[in-house]
Amino acid sequence: MKAEVICIGTELLLGDIVNTNASFFAKELASIGISLHYITTIGDNKERIISAFKLAFERADIIITSGGLGPTVDDITHECIADFLSVKQDLHQDIADKLQAFFKDRGREMVKSNLKQAYLPSGTDILTNNYGTAPGLIYNKNGKIILTFPGVPKELKSMWSETAKPYLFNLQPNKSLIKSRDLRFAGEGESAIAEKVSDLLALENPTVAPYAGNGEVRLRITAKAESEEKADSLIKPIEEEIRKRFPKFYYGSDSENLASVVGKLLIEKKQTLSVAESFTGGTVAKRIVDNTGASNYFTFGMVAYSEELKIKLLGIEKELINTYSIYSEQVAVEMAKKVREMTGTDWGIGTTGLADNIDKDNVKAGTIFVAINSKEKTEVRKLVYSGWKREDIIYMGSQAALNLLRLALIE
Amino acid sequence: MKAEVICIGTELLLGDIVNTNASFFAKELASIGISLHYITTIGDNKERIISAFKLAFERADIIITSGGLGPTVDDITHECIADFLSVKQDLHQDIADKLQAFFKDRGREMVKSNLKQAYLPSGTDILTNNYGTAPGLIYNKNGKIILTFPGVPKELKSMWSETAKPYLFNLQPNKSLIKSRDLRFAGEGESAIAEKVSDLLALENPTVAPYAGNGEVRLRITAKAESEEKADSLIKPIEEEIRKRFPKFYYGSDSENLASVVGKLLIEKKQTLSVAESFTGGTVAKRIVDNTGASNYFTFGMVAYSEELKIKLLGIEKELINTYSIYSEQVAVEMAKKVREMTGTDWGIGTTGLADNIDKDNVKAGTIFVAINSKEKTEVRKLVYSGWKREDIIYMGSQAALNLLRLALIE
Repeated sequence: MKAEVICIGTELLLGDIVNTNASFFAKELASIGISLHYITTIGDNKERIISAFKLAFERADIIITSGGLGPTVDDITHECIADFLSVKQDLHQDIADKLQAFFKDRGREMVKSNLKQAYLPSGTDILTNNYGTAPGLIYNKNGKIILTFPGVPKELKSMWSETAKPYLFNLQPNKSLIKSRDLRFAGEGESAIAEKVSDLLALENPTVAPYAGNGEVRLRITAKAESEEKADSLIKPIEEEIRKRFPKFYYGSDSENLASVVGKLLIEKKQTLSVAESFTGGTVAKRIVDNTGASNYFTFGMVAYSEELKIKLLGIEKELINTYSIYSEQVAVEMAKKVREMTGTDWGIGTTGLADNIDKDNVKAGTIFVAINSKEKTEVRKLVYSGWKREDIIYMGSQAALNLLRLALIE
Repeated sequence: MKAEVICIGTELLLGDIVNTNASFFAKELASIGISLHYITTIGDNKERIISAFKLAFERADIIITSGGLGPTVDDITHECIADFLSVKQDLHQDIADKLQAFFKDRGREMVKSNLKQAYLPSGTDILTNNYGTAPGLIYNKNGKIILTFPGVPKELKSMWSETAKPYLFNLQPNKSLIKSRDLRFAGEGESAIAEKVSDLLALENPTVAPYAGNGEVRLRITAKAESEEKADSLIKPIEEEIRKRFPKFYYGSDSENLASVVGKLLIEKKQTLSVAESFTGGTVAKRIVDNTGASNYFTFGMVAYSEELKIKLLGIEKELINTYSIYSEQVAVEMAKKVREMTGTDWGIGTTGLADNIDKDNVKAGTIFVAINSKEKTEVRKLVYSGWKREDIIYMGSQAALNLLRLALIE
């Protein structure tokens, strides 16, 4: 089975919006083994929409659209489909009732134009939208299928997973789906990781492919099978093999990140953390606090941005700064230690360095120091990111600090 | 003049990448007055690429492609264009020399497949790529134009602005460009702002349109003119008129944000800031520190996440917490005051509240308090975001705190 995606909306042709719906559908269709050869983006123009439908059905069996289901005059997707199918539009009283209730709930009057959304071309079914006023439609006749979605990503995604995805999967003659799992690595580069799994990169089902970005590396394992369970059973042994080869560098899977994994490890060990940040300026604290339940292990963060307040409020000795520079391993370690002692936590993180593009204090721009400290353990790393952008240096610093702590926690 | 964009790459049809190149070209073409009616995304398939070219030239005068210019076997864009134009490919010695130098600079051997990038279809010119190994081409014959770009956004963008954009602009018979300016507002909703400029929303050149998102509202002024200067002179009086109507709510333009504007105001007034955060967990500090030069006005941030450390390290009195709850206006104000006094800055910011989806201490989930304090002034806001996601509540809290400070600074 072949599909085409048609994204409808003049705002897409003006570049006001990045089309994330297209990549969502692309990924999802691939996951249920449906080939996608064309994605077409067009404006709110009747003639062009209808001709896009004609062309798509010459090339494919399934048309998936996003956009143009709203109440305004330029929302014409369903009207175009009625024309394309040479049918009228019928009022669906159940949609109309739902619309009435929606407006009543919000204490607002339903204007007449909203009722437009209760009409669907004859011979099509409702594709229910539980998160907005715009329902989509399902058309399925003579082996040709149309599914329509509103442009709002939240609505489109839930309609897809609740209804459309299982619907299309069940229509497949040879049911097969594709499932991926991302294994995440920190502290080692892409080529070194790829080299250690070069034998696995040649596998055909599942496949293994490396990706790099944002201070970490991923290995994606992708299996094709007739069910989720079978795909899982193909992925599992390869995942175990890979994790065995990287006892230190593998840190988590799929949507996990270094901060969430550090949080999980701290909860497991019933330990607590405080941080004292200089150049990372709150990014380490923010990344930790972004995780629900952070209050179980994170108690305190300090952004000691000025030298004076590093001395006054964090208790770093002036002599240490004078001897080694404020940008030094020694100061990073002392920040981690002082914040830990001050707060009575098990672990402290300290960061100091130069995120701006200027050398200072005989230290090269882009040089950063991150440290962790507990009663038993101290670790510190110096890293240099010459010529990098400020925000990237800050993020890499937070990655390095969190990874140091992770390594200490799994030891 | 009409253009079509063809994005080439199987990875786009698998959803591995969000197609930001498409929206970049869409926006840029609109900015020089070239209409875009179709964006087509296809895979690395010769037959489909050639048929996409045929179709595009039936509908438009200009074809712009991204992707498929690399050295590997699946990079076939130029090969397809040679076939489409029924010409051979010629070796360009200057490209080959540049490729050789590129690899020599990096101490690497140039493999034979790289030489492929030195071939272009006969009768086409080089579209120089100063940031990578893959040059594009320019074809211009009988009123039909093709421009090709690699898929790497950084390379594509610089090739566009350095060469392709001025080239296309100069070909236009009636040169006209579109220029936009975003005016940004905080502390007032979209409909209230739109209502106060309803007369301007009806303008035709420049147009004025409202947009909402991320805790603020934008009014975009868009002018069409034959030069940047003329566009600016159309925009300027409307911008002045709008800013006059919102002396408080207008805060900045284009890429400015509340943190960068607060930073600018603090530098102007030679004043300094410290922050004490609870539920925002470092986001206020992070947003401030993200701006180059933040060390001129930002000295210290504290993420006092546990109640115990709010008492011990920030000096909030236990009685105040017992009387009003840790989630209260009083505690937010006291946090702002204590951090200001502790650090000796002119201003302090305090935040406390419930970003998680659980009621606590008789306070409803989603209730937040943000405060600012100086020797002369105290302001505090209570806001409720029931049912919102944790990260959105945190962001809205940082917006509210920064906007409170902005309003105090412009008073």
